Amino acid sequence: MAEYAAPLKDMQFVLKHVVGLDQVNTLPGWDEVTGDVVDAILGEAAKFAGEVLSPLNASGDRTGASFADGAVTTPPGFKEAYRRFVEGGWGNVISPEEYGGQGLPGMLSTAIEEMWGSANIAFKLCPMLTLGAVEALHRNASEELKKRFLPDMVSGKWTGTMNLTEPQAGSDLSLVRTKAVPQQDGTYRLSGQKIFITYGEQDFTENIVHTVLGRIEGAPEGVKGISLFVVPKFLVQEDGTLGERNGVKCVSIEHKLGIHASPTAVMAYDNAVGYLVGEANRGLEYMFVMMNAARLGVGLEGVSISERAYQRAREWALERLQGRPVGVSGAAKTAPIIQHPDVKRMLLTMKASAEAMRALAYQVSALLDRARKHPDEGERRRCKALVDLLIPVVKGWSTETGIAVASLGVQVHGGMGFIEETGAAQHLRDARITTIYEGTTGIQANDLVGRKVGREAGETMKKLIAEMRKVQKGLTGDGELRAIGARLGKAVDALERSTEWIVATYPDDPGAVAAGSVYYLMLTGLVTGGWMMARAAVAATEQLAAGGGDETFLKGKRLTARFYADHLLPQVDGLAEALVAGGQLVRAADEALI
Amino acid sequence: MAEYAAPLKDMQFVLKHVVGLDQVNTLPGWDEVTGDVVDAILGEAAKFAGEVLSPLNASGDRTGASFADGAVTTPPGFKEAYRRFVEGGWGNVISPEEYGGQGLPGMLSTAIEEMWGSANIAFKLCPMLTLGAVEALHRNASEELKKRFLPDMVSGKWTGTMNLTEPQAGSDLSLVRTKAVPQQDGTYRLSGQKIFITYGEQDFTENIVHTVLGRIEGAPEGVKGISLFVVPKFLVQEDGTLGERNGVKCVSIEHKLGIHASPTAVMAYDNAVGYLVGEANRGLEYMFVMMNAARLGVGLEGVSISERAYQRAREWALERLQGRPVGVSGAAKTAPIIQHPDVKRMLLTMKASAEAMRALAYQVSALLDRARKHPDEGERRRCKALVDLLIPVVKGWSTETGIAVASLGVQVHGGMGFIEETGAAQHLRDARITTIYEGTTGIQANDLVGRKVGREAGETMKKLIAEMRKVQKGLTGDGELRAIGARLGKAVDALERSTEWIVATYPDDPGAVAAGSVYYLMLTGLVTGGWMMARAAVAATEQLAAGGGDETFLKGKRLTARFYADHLLPQVDGLAEALVAGGQLVRAADEALI
Repeated sequence: MAEYAAPLKDMQFVLKHVVGLDQVNTLPGWDEVTGDVVDAILGEAAKFAGEVLSPLNASGDRTGASFADGAVTTPPGFKEAYRRFVEGGWGNVISPEEYGGQGLPGMLSTAIEEMWGSANIAFKLCPMLTLGAVEALHRNASEELKKRFLPDMVSGKWTGTMNLTEPQAGSDLSLVRTKAVPQQDGTYRLSGQKIFITYGEQDFTENIVHTVLGRIEGAPEGVKGISLFVVPKFLVQEDGTLGERNGVKCVSIEHKLGIHASPTAVMAYDNAVGYLVGEANRGLEYMFVMMNAARLGVGLEGVSISERAYQRAREWALERLQGRPVGVSGAAKTAPIIQHPDVKRMLLTMKASAEAMRALAYQVSALLDRARKHPDEGERRRCKALVDLLIPVVKGWSTETGIAVASLGVQVHGGMGFIEETGAAQHLRDARITTIYEGTTGIQANDLVGRKVGREAGETMKKLIAEMRKVQKGLTGDGELRAIGARLGKAVDALERSTEWIVATYPDDPGAVAAGSVYYLMLTGLVTGGWMMARAAVAATEQLAAGGGDETFLKGKRLTARFYADHLLPQVDGLAEALVAGGQLVRAADEALI
Repeated sequence: MAEYAAPLKDMQFVLKHVVGLDQVNTLPGWDEVTGDVVDAILGEAAKFAGEVLSPLNASGDRTGASFADGAVTTPPGFKEAYRRFVEGGWGNVISPEEYGGQGLPGMLSTAIEEMWGSANIAFKLCPMLTLGAVEALHRNASEELKKRFLPDMVSGKWTGTMNLTEPQAGSDLSLVRTKAVPQQDGTYRLSGQKIFITYGEQDFTENIVHTVLGRIEGAPEGVKGISLFVVPKFLVQEDGTLGERNGVKCVSIEHKLGIHASPTAVMAYDNAVGYLVGEANRGLEYMFVMMNAARLGVGLEGVSISERAYQRAREWALERLQGRPVGVSGAAKTAPIIQHPDVKRMLLTMKASAEAMRALAYQVSALLDRARKHPDEGERRRCKALVDLLIPVVKGWSTETGIAVASLGVQVHGGMGFIEETGAAQHLRDARITTIYEGTTGIQANDLVGRKVGREAGETMKKLIAEMRKVQKGLTGDGELRAIGARLGKAVDALERSTEWIVATYPDDPGAVAAGSVYYLMLTGLVTGGWMMARAAVAATEQLAAGGGDETFLKGKRLTARFYADHLLPQVDGLAEALVAGGQLVRAADEALI
């Protein structure tokens, strides 16, 4: 198939007309990020994604990363692509300017990151993890550590990793037992094993900077005894040059269902020199800040894979000729399968899902920008609360939906979808990790119903609901918009009902709430996606009325918004019902009967 | 993990107490199939599945079938397992006795086939396809052809295949162009290419008997010019010994997402000697009869994989220790994850789905037995109509659900689920073909709404609905049963509404119906699954009251029935809504906007 072509029209439309570029580029320091600048940057990124990263996606999957004698070899072309990525300045788009980054709004980098994920998710993980490590150091490390590590990490000369998981400590980080022994000189010596370390070893760069959760000897048990360390593969000398090899090495990489080109390393720390980041025993707190960004990034992978799977399926459906479509007057005896109603439905499901998830992810990113930079503290706090509420939704809902969309992509291809050479199956395999890493869907859902809704009695969610009601009331322009409004209204009702039930139930029976938390997360995703699509439909309608826009694109947006409302939003009542009616049963169920 | 252990208790319970073994073993010729005989046969099959087939499942996936110089090598152990399969008499359980089969009820063989699919789906495909070919010949071929081929196919000495698909003819068999040239001696010479031929070549047996769709020179275009042929790999001489190699060979096998141990062959026919089966130009009709059985068999694979994925996930959830479960009083700080409400919910979803799908598949199988053997023609016709209605539902719903269940199995494992060695991912990869082969879900759905509901104005569906209402009205025993009854009633309402809409809409706007046909199929699956679970709950309640049964099993059945009602049935309203409200939009949507 043709390589990935970034959906620039939709990206620009959402950024400019739905989530409010004008509310971000009026924030301090971003006045130069005009619409034209956005178009230019997105255009360049699209080229890099389509021309450099996308052509390596299938071959990278086939070859995979390999391991021998402590060294990882990435698939042919990856090293060169990484070099070009760094040279093109793509590694440091949102990194802080003081360490050589470009300091662009997260909203814009989100669109760019979506492209990397669509073009080549296995490649994308490397800069994503580096950025996570950069953020952890930037926010928490001493000036000295920052000076020593950040400039070369921001430039991409070195990559960064996040070392959390251990064999016995997966989702439950309280079980981390990597040991850190304090040294006379203020450094620590780390020993232990970490697993599932994305790009824990690679052949792109001469050094790798690991951020590592460990436990200082004598620290309290559980999460309150975990500290964050930075442990470079090669020690960095005073003058910035590389010194000795540190006591950390990759001992193997995993044989995985997908993202084959991304080495998932088992790392052994054997008396490795590490530097404490921030204060002792606050490691989990620091990591959580990093994880919020990473969770948005992984949620975005759901968008990325959905878009790519949709493009591939659409192309196939336009070319593949099979049968006469049911009930299509004038159709050929052997027509392109895109004309078959069920195939149309599948493609529209894929397209509408990708668009809704994209809009929500960009919205959260825009809120994050405002939460960081808005001059008014109240507005910053308001935006931050919305971000905290929506991050688990973007992560959980977009990745679960991404798997479903990638699976539909296989289905559109019929038998050919099951053949690896076709490429559709890779997206499903790659997508399958996204609901797991950076916190499973269950963990996101528990975060949403517990920390985000239950503990604050639904305060932020209720504000969001009021916001959505406003949009719903404005859907009056024409029959199409009114129909969308009616569906959105019913969907918001379901969200409100569910929220009230959670607020009422959580204090006394959190287990029953937890049992249905994934339903609530999916419900919230569907409804907020519907809210975004409704706003997109209004904006598209206005542009069509004003004339001059891309008519096919704008009509397509009205179509997907209506499709989303009629086909996808009706799922919410069943989710609300299962949440409210089913929680106690599950919480009380005897495990011996399961 | 431990190998597959057949869920004998549930199988026996469903056969004896839910779908009515006593209504099958009172049919002519099956009076010896008593409860004890069923138990004995299932027990032996369970041993073979657990001890011989299951241990080869993961290794077969890893090694895969390989191809070189026209020959296929199956993974280590498969050939020997096939030999033991044949020696054990497992290949001919339901085959006609006159050709050496055991002629057991399909209901029993369905339970056995479920075990093969759970233990090793890639292996299972070989006997399944052989049986399909046996049926096609048995029903349609001349006595001479039957005598020549059937005994050795029934015994398993030779295997059989189904050759339908060609590169340009996937779901649309009207495009088949394999050419058959009549010869003086009454045979034909076939030339053409067939793809996706399961076990088209193997190293199990000395001969392979291909059933092949082709077009006799000069035959009409389209489906009315397709004939069925039998084409052996080696010609069979008058005395039954093998003669010359025929002009058919395997030219390659596919590199697939799953079922790696099952060779999916590209077959080249080059002037191959073939024998016409039945009459010319009636090939598709003959194949369709075969496909009905094959569709039931593939639907059953959804059950098989769900069961296996559930067993594996449950075992993991009992062993894996992570975190303190939310809202579980007295839980340990680090508890088995089965205690976490969300994990419980996932496992219950898997278990309840597998049980509901199993019961429905066995029910259809029991109806099929009655449709074949019942002395009363009216009863035979009634059963046949129900079978025809429900086959696409078993095929489509069980396989779609099987994928979802296998995916949940990965999710329960967290990060380990993404690692191939764990085994959970294989089930997802294997499951992914089941919604495609033997007719995609879209094709099943079109069959359901068109041939089965639309064209007969919903007559059979309405009878089934009346049947389900009866069950619903009987759910009065206790609060648990009443709650299940209330949910079932609402779900049947949704099915009735949807059916009425289809009956009203189909004549004038079949395209709108086709657009939502998959929703209707899934809705029908969910509701009929709920009907089966309700009947199972009643039977379990009665046995509990009577005392003497396996209390844990029976209570577990009541739990899954209630879970199914409260958690899964609520989805039906959204499906009905999307069907009714969304069809026209999709049918009328301009492809340029998709």
